[in-house]
Amino acid sequence: MNIVLFDSNELDAGGIVSVRGRRAAYLSEVQGAEPGGILRVGEIGSKMGQAELLEVSSEEAVLKVLSLDEHSPETHTNLIIALPRPQMLKRILQNAATMGVNRIMFIRSARVIKSYFATPVLAEESIREHLLLGLEQGVSTKLPVVSVHDRFRPFVEDELPALSADSTVSLLAHTNASSDISELGLVEGLDSDSQITLGIGPEGGWQAHEVEAFENAGFLCCGLGARVLRVETAVVSLLGQIELLRKLQ
Amino acid sequence: MNIVLFDSNELDAGGIVSVRGRRAAYLSEVQGAEPGGILRVGEIGSKMGQAELLEVSSEEAVLKVLSLDEHSPETHTNLIIALPRPQMLKRILQNAATMGVNRIMFIRSARVIKSYFATPVLAEESIREHLLLGLEQGVSTKLPVVSVHDRFRPFVEDELPALSADSTVSLLAHTNASSDISELGLVEGLDSDSQITLGIGPEGGWQAHEVEAFENAGFLCCGLGARVLRVETAVVSLLGQIELLRKLQ
Repeated sequence: MNIVLFDSNELDAGGIVSVRGRRAAYLSEVQGAEPGGILRVGEIGSKMGQAELLEVSSEEAVLKVLSLDEHSPETHTNLIIALPRPQMLKRILQNAATMGVNRIMFIRSARVIKSYFATPVLAEESIREHLLLGLEQGVSTKLPVVSVHDRFRPFVEDELPALSADSTVSLLAHTNASSDISELGLVEGLDSDSQITLGIGPEGGWQAHEVEAFENAGFLCCGLGARVLRVETAVVSLLGQIELLRKLQ
Repeated sequence: MNIVLFDSNELDAGGIVSVRGRRAAYLSEVQGAEPGGILRVGEIGSKMGQAELLEVSSEEAVLKVLSLDEHSPETHTNLIIALPRPQMLKRILQNAATMGVNRIMFIRSARVIKSYFATPVLAEESIREHLLLGLEQGVSTKLPVVSVHDRFRPFVEDELPALSADSTVSLLAHTNASSDISELGLVEGLDSDSQITLGIGPEGGWQAHEVEAFENAGFLCCGLGARVLRVETAVVSLLGQIELLRKLQ
């Protein structure tokens, strides 16, 4: 936990924050934080700063906010991911929040197992908890917006065109793509503010008609090299590559 | 499991391979493979090809090798990683094998918890099993060479100079580095055959004297951007970025 995140309703008018549960237990038991210590804090959806720890136990930590004036790093990457199995879903939510994404859309595709949509990991509170774990690691206050789309066709027809139109580049990771991500001429066109949308398929890959639907919406297919990555590994590797492409001139 | 890997001693003179245990159970129970099916196979440390499944049960699968003439993708990246906690270690072994690395050196550093060196995950058979899981995912036969170094100074003095001398570039991932990996001018100098050595620190980072020891051996420090990544996330992100840098011209 590299930042203590709190909700606006946990902050009182005198600048005192009281956090309970997991965050207090972590500060007290894992980090061994003690009263008087200065910690990095952030208001979820707003700014970051510093606070002094006034009291701490495994049930509750009370902090006095000293400053709250740093902007959270901006996010300009959207992820579209064929819904993976629940254990992998948890790690994807955390890693995506840590690495910084704007939106995550979990979608149905032919090779997605339908029962995955019934997992409790997709409950609103659960999604939020995994995203917060990721933000606490990555040091950010900006919760990605997560949506779940259990039908492929309506998603493609209703959401993809606007997403693609709003993006500088839209990429579809696809095992059989003829071009690698290094071959799409992306170095010149991208910078840190470019909106990028990235689609990542299920284990076993996208089906041909699904690839066609993305291509029709303006997505470029990109391969992932000779090796077959698990979905969660592909997410992290591609987010790392996109970050590098944004920075290279 | 995208390839069935076998040891040379599991292959008889008639080209018949018999695999037992986890691999047989996976083919039978998860993939529902049936006699007559054609599977991708590979001899560990040697070539890959195809085989016909002759018999399969959850205890044993018998395959007839049809071809064994494809080279495994080459690996030219070495990893030096401050030994992480055991659960993370497992995932790092798997992901590194999937993404393709040549050597992995787990080392002691000031912020590594000493008891981690006693974990059963570091037993030879355990390391091999996790690497094989990674190779089965990534489709390769080339086991990374793993070594464990429980003292920092002897590692730095005895191993680092030769590693650095054999590498086109040696990088040390470091939170406080003044340059990002995008700012080191690496696009021109690297291609798919370049030997690259990458050092990744513990949670909490390298100490100043450790950074100095790497720099004295010729390592360049590179930052990881505004966000703080977990070690296992940093490994995957950086391996993805290095693969991209090798391919960009």
